[in-house]
Order: sequence, then C-alpha cells, then structure tokens
Amino acid sequence: MIESYASLTPVLLLDRAAQSFAERTAVVDGDVVLTYREFAARCERLSGALIEAGIRPGDRVGALCSNSHVMLEVHFGALLAGAVLVPMNTRLAGAELAYVLKHSGARLLVTTSEFAAAGAALADSLELGMLAEGEAYEHALTQAEPRRVETTDERALMSINYTSGTTGRSKGVMYHHRGAFLQSVAMAYHTALQPGTKYLWTLPMFHCHGWSFPFAVTGAGGTHVCLRSIDLARIWEEIRGGATHFSAAPTVLTMIADHAAAGAGAPHPVAVTTGGAPPTPTLLERMAALNLHVTHAYGLTETFGPVMVNQWQPEWDERSAGERASMTARQGIANLIARPPRVVDAEGRDVADDGIEVGELLIRGNDVMLGYYRDEESTRAASHEGWFRTGDLAVMHPDGYVEIRDRLKDVIISGGENIASVEVERALDSHPAVSESAVVGRADDHWGQVPVAFVNLRPGAEVTVGELQDHVRTQLARYKVPKVIHFGELPKTTTGKVQKNVLRTSGGKDAR
Amino acid sequence: MIESYASLTPVLLLDRAAQSFAERTAVVDGDVVLTYREFAARCERLSGALIEAGIRPGDRVGALCSNSHVMLEVHFGALLAGAVLVPMNTRLAGAELAYVLKHSGARLLVTTSEFAAAGAALADSLELGMLAEGEAYEHALTQAEPRRVETTDERALMSINYTSGTTGRSKGVMYHHRGAFLQSVAMAYHTALQPGTKYLWTLPMFHCHGWSFPFAVTGAGGTHVCLRSIDLARIWEEIRGGATHFSAAPTVLTMIADHAAAGAGAPHPVAVTTGGAPPTPTLLERMAALNLHVTHAYGLTETFGPVMVNQWQPEWDERSAGERASMTARQGIANLIARPPRVVDAEGRDVADDGIEVGELLIRGNDVMLGYYRDEESTRAASHEGWFRTGDLAVMHPDGYVEIRDRLKDVIISGGENIASVEVERALDSHPAVSESAVVGRADDHWGQVPVAFVNLRPGAEVTVGELQDHVRTQLARYKVPKVIHFGELPKTTTGKVQKNVLRTSGGKDAR
Repeated sequence: MIESYASLTPVLLLDRAAQSFAERTAVVDGDVVLTYREFAARCERLSGALIEAGIRPGDRVGALCSNSHVMLEVHFGALLAGAVLVPMNTRLAGAELAYVLKHSGARLLVTTSEFAAAGAALADSLELGMLAEGEAYEHALTQAEPRRVETTDERALMSINYTSGTTGRSKGVMYHHRGAFLQSVAMAYHTALQPGTKYLWTLPMFHCHGWSFPFAVTGAGGTHVCLRSIDLARIWEEIRGGATHFSAAPTVLTMIADHAAAGAGAPHPVAVTTGGAPPTPTLLERMAALNLHVTHAYGLTETFGPVMVNQWQPEWDERSAGERASMTARQGIANLIARPPRVVDAEGRDVADDGIEVGELLIRGNDVMLGYYRDEESTRAASHEGWFRTGDLAVMHPDGYVEIRDRLKDVIISGGENIASVEVERALDSHPAVSESAVVGRADDHWGQVPVAFVNLRPGAEVTVGELQDHVRTQLARYKVPKVIHFGELPKTTTGKVQKNVLRTSGGKDAR
Repeated sequence: MIESYASLTPVLLLDRAAQSFAERTAVVDGDVVLTYREFAARCERLSGALIEAGIRPGDRVGALCSNSHVMLEVHFGALLAGAVLVPMNTRLAGAELAYVLKHSGARLLVTTSEFAAAGAALADSLELGMLAEGEAYEHALTQAEPRRVETTDERALMSINYTSGTTGRSKGVMYHHRGAFLQSVAMAYHTALQPGTKYLWTLPMFHCHGWSFPFAVTGAGGTHVCLRSIDLARIWEEIRGGATHFSAAPTVLTMIADHAAAGAGAPHPVAVTTGGAPPTPTLLERMAALNLHVTHAYGLTETFGPVMVNQWQPEWDERSAGERASMTARQGIANLIARPPRVVDAEGRDVADDGIEVGELLIRGNDVMLGYYRDEESTRAASHEGWFRTGDLAVMHPDGYVEIRDRLKDVIISGGENIASVEVERALDSHPAVSESAVVGRADDHWGQVPVAFVNLRPGAEVTVGELQDHVRTQLARYKVPKVIHFGELPKTTTGKVQKNVLRTSGGKDAR
C-alpha cells in the first residue's frame, strides 16, 4: 500500500495557487494588491502570528471584517493554524457580537479598520486577544514565522458560522474541512472559475464563508476584487473594469439593476450567482438584458451555502424568455458534489414528482453541517435519519428540479386553503411598478388568516392598491389576492432577507 | 452531531444524473440510445444480475469490452454490486488476457460482441462466469432486480487497471472510490462538461477508466457518444455532427489531423484533452488551426490518469503562436483536486524552479493508487515517503509549471552529457515533412551512447537523412543530432505509446 492521501481542506486550494499561480494577482483591496506568492506567504505568517498569540488547534478565532485582504487572509490563516474560524456579521449590534464571541468561546479577534473601535471594546470587555488591521496586524505578520498545522481529520471542526436568523437566537453552524473543500470545487465548476476570473466581492465573506468563493477563486487562480461595502456605482465601475463574476442575494441584484449607473449593462457577459431567496422571473429577465447572467443557487448556512443549483439545460435556449425565466427561478438540482435532495410529506414519504404536491426539502451528504454548536436540541430538531431538515416547503418537478414554495413557517392558511407567500409575491413583482414585495398572513376571524402584502415600488413608479390587486387577480385565485397592501421599504436582516417576523407584527392596520 | 455523510464514489455521479437529467440522452452506441433514466436503471439491474451470478462485495469482475453502452454499464454496475472492476485491454493476446484474469482472480467476465468468442474461450478455460453482450446480457438485465451495495469505505478497492507497460510484465494498479470520484470532478471542471456536452469516445474506456470520463460526463449530464473502434472518417463525421469533447493520445491526434476528412476542421470549437505522451508544439498548432483546442494533461495509470493539467493563463493569449504552443506543450500544474507535485534530485531535494535542472517528478495525494495488486515489491519501489515516483524526468519552470524531459529510463548519455530524447524528437517533429519521431540511445564504443532516430513521415512527404540532421543542428547542440535516422512506422503499445524498448533492440543497423 502507498499511504498517499490528502485530507480534504480548503488549504489544498491555497497550496495549488501558491505553486501554480504565484505571480498572478490574488487580491485587489483598494491600494493593496497581492500576488498569490505574497498572499500565501501572508496567510502562513498570519498562522504563525496566531500561534505566537497563544492560539492552539481547536481554539476559536473571531473575525469582524469587511470584505478585505484581511478577511481572506484570516480564512486561510486560521485554518493553517489549526484554529476554528468564527466569521462575524459586521452589521450586528455590540451585544449581539458579544453573544457570538462568548458563545463560540473565541480567544482572539481579528478586525479590519472599520471595526477597530467596536472590536477593541469587545476585546476589552471579554478579555480577548486582538489583531487589528493596520500597524498592529502588519507588525504581527512581519515578526511571525510562517507556520502550518496539518489537518489530519477532514471532518474536524473548521469554523462556526452564526446564522442571522429571521427569528430567535442566532445559532452556530459547525462547518468541517471536507465539506468546505468539496463545496469550493463545486462552485469552481458551476461558475467556471479560471485564472482569468475577476471575482467581485459583493457578497459578505462573513456569510457562509461567502458561499466558499474565498477558497474556490483561490484554487482556480482568479483574482479577488474586494468591496468593503455595497456601493452600487462602484459595482458598475468594477463590472465595466473587467469583473467577470459576482454573487448577491436577489434584493441586492434588484438594487444593482435599478441603479442609474446600470445604463446599457455590462460590456461583457458577467456570471452572477444568486441565492438566499428565490429571484423572481421578472428580476432574472431584467438582469439578462443587462448582460448579467444569473445562475440561481439554493442553500442555507447549514448546507455550506449553495448545495443546489439551477443547472441550465441547452433545450431551454429555445423557449420563450418568460418560460426561460420560470425555469431559472426554480432552485434546481444537487450541485456536482452533492447528493440528490428529497422532498417529503409529513409522514416522511417522497412527494410525487408532479410539480404540485408540496413537502419539506431534505438534504444529506458532504455539505451538511456537523450540527449547531453547543445546541444539541436544535441539532436534533434539524435532523431526521441523517437528513438535514431545511424547513423549506418545495415541490419536485417531473424533470427532477426542486422548486421552493415557501418557508414552512411562512405558509398562509386561509379558509382551509394553503397560500404560498412566494407565489403571491411573484404575481406582485410581475407588475412593472413593483421593485419587490413580501406577503405574510394576518389573523382573520372569518378566514383564519388572510394574505397581507408589503410592496416597495421602483423609483418614480406609481400604482394604486386596487390596480395591484387587479393585477394579481389576473394570475391567481381570488383567495390569494392580498386583502391589504402597504407601500414602503421592506425591513431586512443584515444578509438581505426580508424580516417577515417584523412584517407579521406590523401588518394589517391601514391601506386596505 | 448530524451524521450526514456520503462516501465519495463515482456512484454519486450516476445518482445525480438519474435524478436531475433523467430524460437527457446518456448514451448513443450505434442503434442503442439510452436516457439517463434508462441507463441508471440498466446499471442497477446489471448490479442485480452480477449479484445473482454469485458476485459478492470485493469479487473481481473482468470487462473485455469496446467503447460501448455495455462498458459504461459495467463501470457503474460493478461498483453498485460492490465488486472490483478489472477493465481489460482488448488488444492483448489471449495469453495476456488470461494472465490478467488469473492474476486479478476474476470470477466473471463481461464482454461486448466483438470479443464474445475470445471471452468465451477464456471463460471456458479459466472456469469463469460470463455475461456476453446480446441476448444473454439483455436477458440477465431483464430478469434481475435492481440492486445496490453501499460503499462505506471510500478508500476501498474499486478497480484494478493493468498497465500496458513498455517493458516487463503488466502490473495491476489498484484504484479507490475516493480517487475516482475526485478525479472525475476535476475532469468535469477542467474540460467544462455540461448537460450539453457530447463526449466522443475516441479514448479506450479500458485505459485508466477513460481518464474518469465515464463518471465525469455522467455526473455532468452529458451524452456519451460511443466509438467501438478508431475510425477516422467517423470521428470527423461525429465532430461535424456536434461532438463537443474528445480525448486521445498525441499519436491519435496526429492521425485525426492528417486525415483527408479533416478539411477545414471543426465547425465549432471542440475541447480536446491529450496525454500519455507530450504533444509537440507542431501538433498543437495544427490542431488549433482545425478548431480542435487541445488541453495537455499529464498522468499515469497510477495517478488515475490526468493528475496534472496545462492550465491556460489569459496572458498567453498575447504571445506568438509558437510561444503559445511551447507553453501548452508543458505538462502543467496539479489539477483542481490534486496536491502540488514535486521535482526532486537523486538526494530527494527539490530542484531549482529554473526550467533547467532536471529531477524526478513525484506525486502525492488523493489520486495516487493504493498500490500494485499482489506486488508489494513494485509498490515499495514506486513509493517514497508517501510520494509516488513517476519515473519521469522533469524540470520545474519559474511559473510553477512542470515539463517532462524524458522517462528516467529513456535518457541518453553521450560523452558524459545527458540528452533528453524528447528534446531531439521535438526538433525532428518541427520539420514539415515529419509526422512523428522517436529517439533512443545506442551503445557506442567512443561516446558510451549516441542518439538514433526513428522517423515516420507525413503522407507524401520526402526528406533525406542529411536534411533532417541539418534541421536538428539549427536547434540543438551537435552532440544531440541523431547519428542514424530510420524511416518508417513506429512500433506502439496498444495504448499508443511508442515502444522504445523495441526500437532499442532494432536500432542502428542502416541508413546512417
């Protein structure tokens, strides 16, 4: 026997880039431009600095960072030190951040300059070590020896990703090295990452490790173009400057498409990956017209991000634009490294693959989390015989493509009929005046629940409640038409998901 | 903990296709056209038939098959039954086939119709079970229940691939499921396999599992277009009919490019993967002119086929055609899932990355074989501290790309100077009259060894020995110019490698 083996870990992808793409540009972050030779050396020195600061294998390292060279470096640096990375949502309040740091048991915090003050306050009160971008960080890297701790157990804990959660307390999703490596390879395949790729960082890296793109782009030898905050004019500037890929939730895509700088769109085809919520057919059509070609992916923090992908099939080319958009709005199929998903009824039986019968979507395989950190009860509740329960209600189409109908908890039951809020939102969004919408159920003495809509109009657009209700009525059964429609901005989580829990408590008082 | 796990095995890729691409065409083999629904069902029934024939997990199943739906089915069918597949080189003589069957301990033999008689004779004399394409095979599939044995150990023996070997006895290279899966994913990434792919089977499936493409094309939902034998006119017909990908050794590419049907080339860009021997810059240029875009990959049976790939870098676009071809003629870098290779001197130290210092290429990681079946001595000789010794001499270029200079045993030592036979062959091949060449050392009283060339001319071309020697002299040092040049066909192994051992014993008698 030749004992030739490599634990599957994202570090393999850094090693590939360091050897094969040493002189290529790894990172552009404002004035900071690093080749892969430089970037890999900095990651190994950061690993050394963490070890010198007392971090031992298994210790948790918090990262409160914008999309930056620092955040990319800590992604690899923490892994090289054998530490467990805890990426933190930079939009959380101080008390929420403190909760994450305490719950994860972090011993050290890495921050970028935007969060240096907030980080210092946290480090102070929680008695944590700290590495802040700037002189301290650069000094630590210069002083440190490059170090690396080999990952021998590929199912070992690699990171803890705290969910933003639309309800309740944030949960710590435990990632393993094997899943992150395989997911990265799948992303490289599905989005065709290459050495010529310029990946624009519109997606927060703290969210599911930016859907594994910090690792995937590195393995492919592409360039990370960092965006420290969402700046729509700058996004269009970077697209015109050569960005080939980006990822964002539909709500951000809507803002990009609506922005004045959009003009006639991108000068070259740009590969866009979206997820986190289903994009509407209307949005997909508008994006395509701007030369922004959206692949719809589906996943949760618990599934390492996009475990499913709406794989394009060549025969769809010949369909009408509307039909194409409908095909693409579906969540799709297992990604290349994933196992086929299941959709099951309340008794755990597979639903018919008829695109009609609704059940819960279950996921199993290498891109399912280890569980929730220090929360056995939630872990047990989320699993069923080795399957992860997504909490999403879906149908299975005859062609094997899954389509999400709603979150389990978002279904509206009116007069004994189930109403999928997503379906009503699609009908609303197909009106030219509508930018985006959200539909929730409101308690009703007669019907049990009735649908209530919250609608954000496109800039300068006008429409009445009656006109919108008429528009929905042309597409859906009468009982699905919102009884009440509110106009205005939608409340969102820091990762861009609409906060339906907020809407539920505020809904139904006016504009009937 | 959620124990959600999937053993990495090529069966995952069949499962993906069965669920997501059920109505797409999986296989075209003459009149046999199968969707993925049909193909997957047949694989599971073949698994059932093997089990009913007494095959138990770990039992070896021989396959003496042309590139056919049967060979594809037995690739998945054997794995589904938990059996160990032994793909056999159909060009071997009866005694050689008997050796492989006996050495592997095969219990059953699957054959396609071309080899039914040879297979029956073998099965008879060795007392093996047999499933021969045609009525017997179809009957077995119809009768059998679909069956599947789960692979729980992904490093378990999946198949034994016997090397064709340019010298000595054939060795049984042991593959594991994990390596075959990861290699398949890498091939899907590097050749951009998609549901629209039509993969033309010019490469024998019995050779390193056709570089994993039986698995990779399936996972991507592409179509396998079977070629039961190399028919150059038919290859051009299939290319004009829509084939998007094929793979072949350089010697086959030369035949394809030289064929009368080549005409102005392919009507659409075709992605070609080559390996097994370094393609000459001359060949690469000719192929590109025919719209056949060659990616040069490098590997051995022991490394699951292409463990390295000549990854294109966008800056190369701006170089001259000649420079581009020189870049592409290099063997390249680790594929996406592989670990970086090393090139080491006789003391095991890494050579300088200067493109000059020569050392032996070593490979480590998930696409290294388990070892040689029942041959501990060869296994030990081929490994060095977890690294697989390729026996190939290479240089490391400053950009991290590896270039093979020669097989360790093919180096010519003349007057104390090392001559890489590949270098002399390239110089010869750059002459317009030359189709291909091979250079070996011949014992010489004065110099120790001198280079001797064997040259096959392009159809209708003429050139003298003196003209070729002058041509080489313009490119290489005088001592590297072949002292003797023979004209004629080159002797080859069944997988298209030049048999230098044959040339060495026949060389140097005439045409000085």
